[in-house]
Amino acid sequence: MRSERIRSWWGWGWADAAVGPDERARLVARLPPHWVADELPVPRVEDVVLRAPRVSPPDTLNPICTVHPHVRMSHTYGKAYRDVVRALHGDLGAAPDVVAYPETEAQIVDLLDWAGGANVAVIPYGGGSSVVGGVEYRGDRHDAVLTLDLTRMDRVLEVDRTSRAALIQAGALGPVLEEQLAPHGYTLRHYPQSFEFSTLGGWLATRAGGHFAMRHTRIDDFVEALRVVSPSGTSQTRRLPASGAGPSPDRLFLGSEGTLGVLTEAWMRLQDRPVHKATRAVSFGDFAAALRAVRAIAQSGLDPSNCRLLDEAEAAINTGRADGRAVLVLGFESADHPVDSALARTLEIARENGGSVDSTSTQDSVGDWRAAFLRMPYIRDALARSGVVVETFETACTWDSAERVCDSVRAGVRAATEEICGESGIVTVRLTHVYPDGVAPYFTVIAPARRGSEVQMWDQIKAAASDLLSGLGASITHHHAVGRDHLRWYEAQRPDLFGEVLRAAKNSLDPRGVLNPGVLFD
Amino acid sequence: MRSERIRSWWGWGWADAAVGPDERARLVARLPPHWVADELPVPRVEDVVLRAPRVSPPDTLNPICTVHPHVRMSHTYGKAYRDVVRALHGDLGAAPDVVAYPETEAQIVDLLDWAGGANVAVIPYGGGSSVVGGVEYRGDRHDAVLTLDLTRMDRVLEVDRTSRAALIQAGALGPVLEEQLAPHGYTLRHYPQSFEFSTLGGWLATRAGGHFAMRHTRIDDFVEALRVVSPSGTSQTRRLPASGAGPSPDRLFLGSEGTLGVLTEAWMRLQDRPVHKATRAVSFGDFAAALRAVRAIAQSGLDPSNCRLLDEAEAAINTGRADGRAVLVLGFESADHPVDSALARTLEIARENGGSVDSTSTQDSVGDWRAAFLRMPYIRDALARSGVVVETFETACTWDSAERVCDSVRAGVRAATEEICGESGIVTVRLTHVYPDGVAPYFTVIAPARRGSEVQMWDQIKAAASDLLSGLGASITHHHAVGRDHLRWYEAQRPDLFGEVLRAAKNSLDPRGVLNPGVLFD
Repeated sequence: MRSERIRSWWGWGWADAAVGPDERARLVARLPPHWVADELPVPRVEDVVLRAPRVSPPDTLNPICTVHPHVRMSHTYGKAYRDVVRALHGDLGAAPDVVAYPETEAQIVDLLDWAGGANVAVIPYGGGSSVVGGVEYRGDRHDAVLTLDLTRMDRVLEVDRTSRAALIQAGALGPVLEEQLAPHGYTLRHYPQSFEFSTLGGWLATRAGGHFAMRHTRIDDFVEALRVVSPSGTSQTRRLPASGAGPSPDRLFLGSEGTLGVLTEAWMRLQDRPVHKATRAVSFGDFAAALRAVRAIAQSGLDPSNCRLLDEAEAAINTGRADGRAVLVLGFESADHPVDSALARTLEIARENGGSVDSTSTQDSVGDWRAAFLRMPYIRDALARSGVVVETFETACTWDSAERVCDSVRAGVRAATEEICGESGIVTVRLTHVYPDGVAPYFTVIAPARRGSEVQMWDQIKAAASDLLSGLGASITHHHAVGRDHLRWYEAQRPDLFGEVLRAAKNSLDPRGVLNPGVLFD
Repeated sequence: MRSERIRSWWGWGWADAAVGPDERARLVARLPPHWVADELPVPRVEDVVLRAPRVSPPDTLNPICTVHPHVRMSHTYGKAYRDVVRALHGDLGAAPDVVAYPETEAQIVDLLDWAGGANVAVIPYGGGSSVVGGVEYRGDRHDAVLTLDLTRMDRVLEVDRTSRAALIQAGALGPVLEEQLAPHGYTLRHYPQSFEFSTLGGWLATRAGGHFAMRHTRIDDFVEALRVVSPSGTSQTRRLPASGAGPSPDRLFLGSEGTLGVLTEAWMRLQDRPVHKATRAVSFGDFAAALRAVRAIAQSGLDPSNCRLLDEAEAAINTGRADGRAVLVLGFESADHPVDSALARTLEIARENGGSVDSTSTQDSVGDWRAAFLRMPYIRDALARSGVVVETFETACTWDSAERVCDSVRAGVRAATEEICGESGIVTVRLTHVYPDGVAPYFTVIAPARRGSEVQMWDQIKAAASDLLSGLGASITHHHAVGRDHLRWYEAQRPDLFGEVLRAAKNSLDPRGVLNPGVLFD
């Protein structure tokens, strides 16, 4: 293990980084007092009773498998609000029977063979940061559940400096792979909020969104070649910068969320570390004007690395700004050339669309924002323990419906909280990724919950939000993936015919249906 | 019909644009005299005997079908060298029995239903510009062949100015769709060499390469949503700027080359017309140095729109330059902001890598080059008629193998021409599209042929070239597609497991196997 720090089994991140009493006091002070309940205690590991494992792996695989309760508990759920709450309530009936830590591809093949023969469901698992039920078995058709933790396959195997690409094992967590790329002067530069606690394989399987607000918004475009082990065999694509030879094999596995095979390695395109940077914040009195500005910037071809619009409530929460204005944080970066003129032209467009440009560079506030951004899941956990529903959901839509999506979803989800929680919650939006033809809005909900009914209440809010998105023709997800929580709306979004094709692919690659059952398919 | 001009049934483009006696004389004067044979005459349409049509479409479909010999002849082949030569020799045994011109999607559904029931192979056909045998039936398992010419479905149905996207029917030829977008101030800006004689549907089905040397190099990235009619039903994806909801449905159909369904409509991302442009040529004494320069530019993030490197022979042929230097043509363009500083920095990188920058803008020579580029297929036909093998092939490879690919393939194909044609031919290379991690080299072969054996000789040269590419780990195609001519090498390149998945998709979408049999699948 590279770190002596211990991961939280019930909540986000490092156990020792959880919100303490002082920080909690400051947090809850910002909420209506009657929203705040006594802090839900964390169950002691030794007090949680798990079902006895229903299978034993064969002797040859035993050395890489464990049935240790702490390990099984920490692999039961992802890290959604509903996962954290259930863990805190000691509701761990879905714990996997066995957790395996393969160190070689041959071991993965053997594990899949064994699982197929023994009717054991296999949950491929990277950092376990899913917020859509992606790593939690919910079915009843399998005799047991095996979680396949890939984090021991975490090496950068080869760096091609000429092509600026690296062969990386799928189980490498963000910091682990960046640490290995740094001596070569390169970076993958993929920074989802889960960066510390998610893996390359997880990013690829879920089409994760990363650092760049424009252009290479998700991990997909950085894939040069992919290696996948499925129960039917292994697939390895050729390293190519691009190919027009038939439909892209890699694009079938990107977004397959562990249902078609286990991603084991990928050749990834790297970046030089940026040396030129320029950032600035622009504020808007009117969110609609801010949207017009972002659209004009998105269609200008300037392609800022960062183009993050916070509505007035997000701006207040995240930057401490209390002037009721929406804030657009712009950033440019390059390893090759100055970016000041690109920023200047972008600011001109922002001004033309009613923006008021901050007088100084936002480098500090960008740093603050980043720190707050990475701290957010810990705060979410603290609020969850204090009886508050706190969760996020995200989407993508074309520009012609962007304002309607932002407005209707905020209003509609507020109305849903009023109905479900008894009073209107806080619903905010920010834009995380931007395209010439549309945008990815990201919503946050904060509302009071009734102890013991938190999951049910959140599920109702989530269903209301998802129905709204679906009705507006927006995507059920831009980068959080489908998992089990989005399945109903995903099936409505996915053309039926493509659903049949995917099912045919699944039958071909995983004929016994052991891979991540319940994800992508009913 | 929008044009009164008549398409050539045997060769490229407009019948009245074929090379005439004077131009032919100038062309052949540039070749060794003993390479040049008497000009092969074009058979008269009325002299060509076609097999009688083996089927009659049902009465309801008859009004949109034709068995006219001229139409059947002109739909027999694509526009590869081997197609032109066979047509000139009157070898039209592969002519389709019927050509249908559907005007509605319902008619496509009816045609597919009829074909499925009658065991009639269906060849989706746009502009017919395939150079890989993509539109030519070669099997013997079907009772007849129907070519589905989609060019009557050629309208821009809707323009969304806010999202800068348009819903376009798949049968629109390049000029036809651009003409409809122009009044809105937009352009698709996709200019393959075949622009005048290829359709949106054809571009999508073959993942065609277009205008931009970097970033959006192929049509794939401009697709917002896709509509496909298959024998099993119709698939329509949601209009989204991006989505992380499962594997991309559109990416399955992009590159499916008419084997999984008929693409009928697509929402396409548009561009504003550029107003700022800057171009310059840079020459290099050494091709390896030029490659290093292009690589440095490709990895700089400057992303020129045009970044076309011609080796010394290409430069001599295409620009008249006779100093034995390789030429890199660089271009930047924008609808929003000046691009001079981006060009200046790019030229600096070129100089750092041994380039000598032309003193004046290359706007004129770019125009000349473009005119020559579009004239090239007509010239190819004229030389084909004069007994010379003239053909191109292309690939993509990562930068670490780029020099080896360019050098080995030029040398290897020259050796192949020596063996096959009795003397060494001319083999040149240019780079058409560029990526941070690799490049797409495009090769031209000119060699003497023996009358009557031209196709066989070309096929031997092509096999030698394809074996070389395969052995070097390069792609069998970057943007010409697989068709029937690349099948053997495509099967070697495609992971077997993905081949099985594709086959499962095919069985699901086209259970009777009538769609473009022999393409992508054996």
